[in-house]
Amino acid sequence: MIKVGILGGGQLGRMMLQEAANYPVETYILENDSQCPAAHLCHHFHLGDIRDYETVMSFGEKVDVLTIEIESVNVDALEALEKMGKKVIPHPSVLRTIKNKVFQKQFYSEQEIPTASFVITHSKEQVLQHKHLLPAVHKIGEGGYDGRGVQIIHTEEDLHLAFDAPSVFEKKVELDKEIAVTVAVDQHGKIIMYPPVEMVFAPYLNLLDYQLCPADISNNVLWKLEAVTVKLAKAFNSPGLFAIEMLIDRNGDVWVNETAPRVHNSGHHTIEAHYSSQYDMLWRIMLDYPLGNPDMLKPSVLINLIGEQGFTGVPKYEGLPEILQMPEAYVHFYGKETTKPGRKMGHVTVLGTDRIDLIRKAKFVKDKLKVKA
Amino acid sequence: MIKVGILGGGQLGRMMLQEAANYPVETYILENDSQCPAAHLCHHFHLGDIRDYETVMSFGEKVDVLTIEIESVNVDALEALEKMGKKVIPHPSVLRTIKNKVFQKQFYSEQEIPTASFVITHSKEQVLQHKHLLPAVHKIGEGGYDGRGVQIIHTEEDLHLAFDAPSVFEKKVELDKEIAVTVAVDQHGKIIMYPPVEMVFAPYLNLLDYQLCPADISNNVLWKLEAVTVKLAKAFNSPGLFAIEMLIDRNGDVWVNETAPRVHNSGHHTIEAHYSSQYDMLWRIMLDYPLGNPDMLKPSVLINLIGEQGFTGVPKYEGLPEILQMPEAYVHFYGKETTKPGRKMGHVTVLGTDRIDLIRKAKFVKDKLKVKA
Repeated sequence: MIKVGILGGGQLGRMMLQEAANYPVETYILENDSQCPAAHLCHHFHLGDIRDYETVMSFGEKVDVLTIEIESVNVDALEALEKMGKKVIPHPSVLRTIKNKVFQKQFYSEQEIPTASFVITHSKEQVLQHKHLLPAVHKIGEGGYDGRGVQIIHTEEDLHLAFDAPSVFEKKVELDKEIAVTVAVDQHGKIIMYPPVEMVFAPYLNLLDYQLCPADISNNVLWKLEAVTVKLAKAFNSPGLFAIEMLIDRNGDVWVNETAPRVHNSGHHTIEAHYSSQYDMLWRIMLDYPLGNPDMLKPSVLINLIGEQGFTGVPKYEGLPEILQMPEAYVHFYGKETTKPGRKMGHVTVLGTDRIDLIRKAKFVKDKLKVKA
Repeated sequence: MIKVGILGGGQLGRMMLQEAANYPVETYILENDSQCPAAHLCHHFHLGDIRDYETVMSFGEKVDVLTIEIESVNVDALEALEKMGKKVIPHPSVLRTIKNKVFQKQFYSEQEIPTASFVITHSKEQVLQHKHLLPAVHKIGEGGYDGRGVQIIHTEEDLHLAFDAPSVFEKKVELDKEIAVTVAVDQHGKIIMYPPVEMVFAPYLNLLDYQLCPADISNNVLWKLEAVTVKLAKAFNSPGLFAIEMLIDRNGDVWVNETAPRVHNSGHHTIEAHYSSQYDMLWRIMLDYPLGNPDMLKPSVLINLIGEQGFTGVPKYEGLPEILQMPEAYVHFYGKETTKPGRKMGHVTVLGTDRIDLIRKAKFVKDKLKVKA
């Protein structure tokens, strides 16, 4: 059996391993928490720091293929392992480009991928020289994750919020919709794209409220999304699964915001709503099998299950029976031992017939199901 | 988290554990092979013999809920654990009835569940006194599994093949179709039934060739199946998931052949083709959640992947790329380290539109995909 190692043992690793059991593959996880969501679902669990060169090297030497479930890994080690002949998916060169938002943004620009106008800044003072970009978004190069490291600068009065570190300072797109596209590239360069999904945000919190598939977009916008996706997938020049976040402006133009070179939250709905899930697809890529079928079985809505404000401790899932009685709902809990405000504790996917049906179901789930302690 | 222990670590346990990771549950496996298909997917693996009283007792003391994935377990231990207050699903009384085919058959008779005419025999000589039942089937009470322990006695010339042990000697039903029905009973006695599936056998080998869902039966037969299923589910008087094998004769009458009080091969297609799979359903029962939705998403065909004659050793899956290219096919390999003739190594489920489409796809899978070594 082929031996595959995953750097990181969170919920993405967990769902990868649920799917791995369909294939003849021996699985390895590296993570520095022995109680992490993926720890008990692999053949071999290794306790260690994915950011440490020696640790990643000795882990990588045990396997045939390596992948990641989070970008904050030791890329030097992955590059050395690749030189030793290990398959690393995605290629370390892609990780190096993507894990630093400055490099990522410069890559889009060099590759003529449409992305919002920007400058690179190294200090607060430099930001002051680019007021013409306001309203703008300031994104720190390294260290940002899940909303941290991103600051919206509406007016000059907000300029004190800017980062004093290498960052991208970019013009805010006049947003019509935020879209995520998952694209798969196999080891022979074949490309397959999932139908675009539409992110719906709570207007006051800038938190993802729910996510609809398919996105409600015109054919014209769909064609632009497809063209940009394929161009970007080719530009990375690497096998892998890529989740691309794109912004549609009020003119119907498409701008790439950022890419995750791995399975991603925006693809969870594919487990039940599509023939081949994002997890299945990544295993096919790593095991050098034919790509799966990204088509929808049914329209779907995805709701993240986030730890409620004011609760820290052993999670209690309030309202769960009501959700489990919904005839088209699927729950996924991530097995985390403690909840805290804002922590991703699970998700719910609901299948449906159309947008109105899906939005109604999403609101029901959000009203009923709460993670408390 | 609730702690659930499973006796047995084969492919059924493996698929139970893939599904368990969706729920907040801590999983335990007891099996005497540390390389078994389920060993690496649980929180706690215990090496030991599921038939040994002391072993089952000490395993059972660690958990809140117990279930089985095979009937050949120590029922005395499960009864003692139930008396200690552990939830055992299904109840040990049901296991005691079902694991001996003589007791099982007598139970159907006592409960007025339609089943083929029979006598209980204890020796070859006794069989000779019941020639009026010919052509008949002779089934050994204990120790039969997967086709072993069942002997068809067509004529008096075959009588020497009869078992010299406590057995059921039953009149052969003039078979029109063989049907399997999965029924779920929750901890409060609520009953839900999956659509019946139809088994199609290779005419010369008496081996399951493939299995179609839905079964091609008249409404009249469907009503009879439903009535018998509900009556039997109530008669067991136990929570659990039950796979009931039923024979439809040429008059359209329904006869119960046998029941497995657990997840079963005949329910594998529910993973992709139904909203709630048999595995999901059993977790809901054990965790005392509302029952799931047994409805079909799409018609399906299930093909077992059996070790080819003449090959023993590390499995090689010939024709796999062709199957993985089918847009509606799902493969499941059980992770067994060696194949041997007739061993269940995996299965394939294919979704489709109608019976003709499904049969065409089943034949393609059977033609292309071979387990060799």
